[in-house]
Amino acid sequence: MKALVYHGKEDMRVESVPDPTPRDARSALVKVERAAICGSDLHLYHGDMPVPPGLVVGHEFVGEVMETGSDVANVRVGDHVLVSGVIGCGQCKRCVRGEVVRCERKQTQVFGVGPDLPGGQAEAVAVPGADHAIRPIPEGVSVEQAVLLTDILPTGYFGARNADIEPGDTVVVIGAGPVGLLALLSAQLFGAARILVVDRVPERLALAKELGGIPVPAAEADATIAELTNEQGADRVIEAVGSDATILKAIDWVRPAGTVSVIGVNTSPSVPFPMVLALMKDLTFRIGLVPVPELWPALIPLVASGRLQPERVFTHRMGLSEGAEAYRLFSAREDGILKVLLDPSR
Amino acid sequence: MKALVYHGKEDMRVESVPDPTPRDARSALVKVERAAICGSDLHLYHGDMPVPPGLVVGHEFVGEVMETGSDVANVRVGDHVLVSGVIGCGQCKRCVRGEVVRCERKQTQVFGVGPDLPGGQAEAVAVPGADHAIRPIPEGVSVEQAVLLTDILPTGYFGARNADIEPGDTVVVIGAGPVGLLALLSAQLFGAARILVVDRVPERLALAKELGGIPVPAAEADATIAELTNEQGADRVIEAVGSDATILKAIDWVRPAGTVSVIGVNTSPSVPFPMVLALMKDLTFRIGLVPVPELWPALIPLVASGRLQPERVFTHRMGLSEGAEAYRLFSAREDGILKVLLDPSR
Amino acid sequence: MKALVYHGKEDMRVESVPDPTPRDARSALVKVERAAICGSDLHLYHGDMPVPPGLVVGHEFVGEVMETGSDVANVRVGDHVLVSGVIGCGQCKRCVRGEVVRCERKQTQVFGVGPDLPGGQAEAVAVPGADHAIRPIPEGVSVEQAVLLTDILPTGYFGARNADIEPGDTVVVIGAGPVGLLALLSAQLFGAARILVVDRVPERLALAKELGGIPVPAAEADATIAELTNEQGADRVIEAVGSDATILKAIDWVRPAGTVSVIGVNTSPSVPFPMVLALMKDLTFRIGLVPVPELWPALIPLVASGRLQPERVFTHRMGLSEGAEAYRLFSAREDGILKVLLDPSR
Amino acid sequence: MKALVYHGKEDMRVESVPDPTPRDARSALVKVERAAICGSDLHLYHGDMPVPPGLVVGHEFVGEVMETGSDVANVRVGDHVLVSGVIGCGQCKRCVRGEVVRCERKQTQVFGVGPDLPGGQAEAVAVPGADHAIRPIPEGVSVEQAVLLTDILPTGYFGARNADIEPGDTVVVIGAGPVGLLALLSAQLFGAARILVVDRVPERLALAKELGGIPVPAAEADATIAELTNEQGADRVIEAVGSDATILKAIDWVRPAGTVSVIGVNTSPSVPFPMVLALMKDLTFRIGLVPVPELWPALIPLVASGRLQPERVFTHRMGLSEGAEAYRLFSAREDGILKVLLDPSR
Repeated sequence: MKALVYHGKEDMRVESVPDPTPRDARSALVKVERAAICGSDLHLYHGDMPVPPGLVVGHEFVGEVMETGSDVANVRVGDHVLVSGVIGCGQCKRCVRGEVVRCERKQTQVFGVGPDLPGGQAEAVAVPGADHAIRPIPEGVSVEQAVLLTDILPTGYFGARNADIEPGDTVVVIGAGPVGLLALLSAQLFGAARILVVDRVPERLALAKELGGIPVPAAEADATIAELTNEQGADRVIEAVGSDATILKAIDWVRPAGTVSVIGVNTSPSVPFPMVLALMKDLTFRIGLVPVPELWPALIPLVASGRLQPERVFTHRMGLSEGAEAYRLFSAREDGILKVLLDPSR
Repeated sequence: MKALVYHGKEDMRVESVPDPTPRDARSALVKVERAAICGSDLHLYHGDMPVPPGLVVGHEFVGEVMETGSDVANVRVGDHVLVSGVIGCGQCKRCVRGEVVRCERKQTQVFGVGPDLPGGQAEAVAVPGADHAIRPIPEGVSVEQAVLLTDILPTGYFGARNADIEPGDTVVVIGAGPVGLLALLSAQLFGAARILVVDRVPERLALAKELGGIPVPAAEADATIAELTNEQGADRVIEAVGSDATILKAIDWVRPAGTVSVIGVNTSPSVPFPMVLALMKDLTFRIGLVPVPELWPALIPLVASGRLQPERVFTHRMGLSEGAEAYRLFSAREDGILKVLLDPSR
Repeated sequence: MKALVYHGKEDMRVESVPDPTPRDARSALVKVERAAICGSDLHLYHGDMPVPPGLVVGHEFVGEVMETGSDVANVRVGDHVLVSGVIGCGQCKRCVRGEVVRCERKQTQVFGVGPDLPGGQAEAVAVPGADHAIRPIPEGVSVEQAVLLTDILPTGYFGARNADIEPGDTVVVIGAGPVGLLALLSAQLFGAARILVVDRVPERLALAKELGGIPVPAAEADATIAELTNEQGADRVIEAVGSDATILKAIDWVRPAGTVSVIGVNTSPSVPFPMVLALMKDLTFRIGLVPVPELWPALIPLVASGRLQPERVFTHRMGLSEGAEAYRLFSAREDGILKVLLDPSR
Repeated sequence: MKALVYHGKEDMRVESVPDPTPRDARSALVKVERAAICGSDLHLYHGDMPVPPGLVVGHEFVGEVMETGSDVANVRVGDHVLVSGVIGCGQCKRCVRGEVVRCERKQTQVFGVGPDLPGGQAEAVAVPGADHAIRPIPEGVSVEQAVLLTDILPTGYFGARNADIEPGDTVVVIGAGPVGLLALLSAQLFGAARILVVDRVPERLALAKELGGIPVPAAEADATIAELTNEQGADRVIEAVGSDATILKAIDWVRPAGTVSVIGVNTSPSVPFPMVLALMKDLTFRIGLVPVPELWPALIPLVASGRLQPERVFTHRMGLSEGAEAYRLFSAREDGILKVLLDPSR
């Protein structure tokens, strides 16, 4: 089959690879209908993650079930399904609850990152632990929406849930990339009165406004947040960038007894943390990996009913054959690109 | 001054009464700019509440502060303000937190109902405990919205908050009168995926739909709820009618381990309660009076930011001089009437 | 094997019955080491429950696994185990979380009550859905403690958890029978400052005091509760009797915005409910069946570490061969009886 | 009057100073009956805090009200009272709720630290905002217990409350000094099954065991925690030391999706924070200053009823005249010293 394969720093190639084979009776084979490129794939593209050359990449994909192992009970051949971008053992107490990122057997893996778990920017994928990793796409959810449910929408929602938002709150979202925008939509589900979205890029701020946020250019953020909160600070801050500097800004901008929720991926072994400021502020600080399937019971009905419309974040739709160019564009942030959808049939 | 005065069952008259006088140094005098008639005023109109003839009625009003006692610190002459429809002693631990309906000194009273607390369907009102009962109307909140913040919007919101709604839930609201419709808007703040609104009146169902609800004619409710929830029952039910029959329906329609939240006013000393059904369902059942000022820190910013637009429930705007006719119309449910706003200057 | 068999009102007999046979590959066969008689077994004994004559009774038992079906993964032959007194399908979303009383497939059944689910007051029991219904007895938990973990301790704990207790609260427990006493111990886990236990029987009140409660004779309860709470009412009331009268007392004794949690079994289709009082009090009222396995992750460590010592409720230890007499004694409340442990080997 | 006065690093003297005078009509004058030295006073003693020489120190004290301003309503001359070690403006929304450390007017101050707020290791103290800072000592609370309620017991309790403890949890407390021991007692109120207390000092570990903890010598902590939690990590960790190293250990020892609650005082502007570890663990991290009066409604009833017995932490009772020696002993950790009570009459 055709697939996007990692060959080293900034070297992603579309090429032919052997068809995937399900590893055991609990696995399923999924023919990919659409996949997406995630911001975290760029870390990999830039050589910042220890991925073996030759690995098929991608952890956001949906498709049709072609084959199921004999122990798979909840998924049937012919189902159109969404697949969690991250999986665990599928059997421990935490995995059974969907908290696959906290697998008690420490078998958490991400598709297209874990060395034995080839990814979904390909024509087909073998999915282990199919009963826990897969859900049928219900009526009312489009294929594009389903792709977003495999990782990035749960991530944005996780950021909002972790922020302890209460009705009437003023929330700051740092970063108007796709994750930040989905955090904005999610924060609305918790009753935020005002959601300030901070970014440097005017186009992204315009989109944040369109989606219901209050756009704040990064250069004006200190002053604007102070003014709009009467110098008290924001009730909650969601950090969706992942740099040390924006994490520090988040702590700076939150009010006493508020919450900072980090969903930007920061993989530093040591970030300078302003402990005395945190102490004076009575800070709650959260950072974590999204437990995708745990969040589906909340998110799938919200998308199916039309209350959440996340698909606005797709700006580019390309064929899988254009995958190398898609990575280049996305990395260069050219052409107003926010998020790319890939079609393996093209 | 002119005021609407209760003279007995279905006998409400606009007449001249003495001007109100503040009772002590903690009181303020408010010139009424707008008042509204509440569904609960109809109980009074129908003679179902023990109100002394001669009392000025009405507990939903906003206006301008004309005079403040020497101990009033947070309110100034000239402020345009909203006044809580219900007040307590204003000083005990609960009143200080806005929970005036749970006053530890048992001094909870409703304007225009409590015999020493003349109401706001009048040109002016004396407000005791002004610091706790009054808030300035902030920028972004219209006079009509402010009237709704004095009682009925907090009531709808209280119903939604008491329902333990989680994101993705299916919620049923029984009754598409003004309180039910405001409960519908409020339930959206807690992330409900689907909100079914049950009523008998097609016009009210149409308005529920316009406000984002799924309209369900009462005659089809049993079947529709069963179908849409795969026979599991609704996650949460908000009862906004107050009859014994609809409270029983609420218990019937909720799923196991769900919550029934009653905001319809039911004053029966004894309602037959299906205890064995509640036992089998693991039921949480809540009913209570709204602690108006406790809810303002959530609701005022939501209205000010435009996230909550409750004013749609007003269908009639009349002069105070037409007050008697307004009560008649509202009681007869003529002319598509939902909620009446009264202007004391007319 | 020998077993206690129901033959009609007040006619319980120890007799020989066919050995149980596991129903399918997900079942296990358990040799009973100890069983207990539950207060709810008395409803059955008195003919108040529709149980078919000939059924082996009892839903509180522990034992050794003798045989497991081919699909049983978490339980092994030779394990000493505790078995949930209530089971569901074992596979739906709720059962997987231990909420077997809310089984989505509506297959909730109690051992020794459900007509196809013979009980545990016997030498052996066939247990369906073994992976979900069974847990090994861990180090630190005695056989007698394990018996209490199968139903009655989770019930007392459920009552306390449902009561929304906060540290510093004053809690009333109505009924100092075994369930009430275990609710008393459980309420201590949530930080209650004072736990008043109301009963008529001096011996039970003495035991309540020994376990850390404040004993209140029923005849003095109105006055005592009023006095100790400065006429405000108790923060929380746990009802552990199940009569209409005590449920009404619970509502009477709770403070505004407090919680009433009912674990006494009341199976009336219609109890007169003081709706206007509930309305004035802003009442939260909960009643339900205990989801036994859901509570094990909290309760098993607490018993194993010695923080919870529930075994004090056993007052009588008898042989299974004395089972008929045990029921008679328990029903007559003779001999200071609180709870009976049965040994099938005698 | 006599008082302990700060004169520079490790130079604390008992000397005569002018009697305190209440600053306004909202203040009260309190004759000190007992005061205590807090661990945080040592920071000051060691010259680590910017305190003006000449300041009377101490923020833990109780006494008798000698004089009240004309606007003081809740406190009367002759009352024996406890005084919050930290105060705010006393009038903003947060102060009214007891959250004085989050004063909206940014007027939070600690007695004996803030330059205009002389402390309580003295014969008398002027207390601003008396209505909010002072509570009568109720029946059942001893003078020694009352002293602990002014700061250190609320701090330990705050650490436990911030740790999100659920019944059945395994909790680690780092540090068996007075704050750690009170965190241990407090963690029991939230239903912890096992509380491991880590320290280097055998006497402190022995006391932790006496109070219900599981003592763990610091050198064995890594191995013991791993073993007792099956390599999963502790559900919650309360850090009661305040060093960078112990904060890092706390993050190391907590399980995925667990909580680290820091009450040790760490005033570093920049602590190296293991962000990638926090990310992988889905960490909740809390650190803050204790809002003393907010916690009294929970803590005062618990001490009054005997459920909390914090007084065990006092190891030394001395006269105020021995104050300089008390600081020296405490700083040197000589003589098994844990916490010193001072009597101004000696």
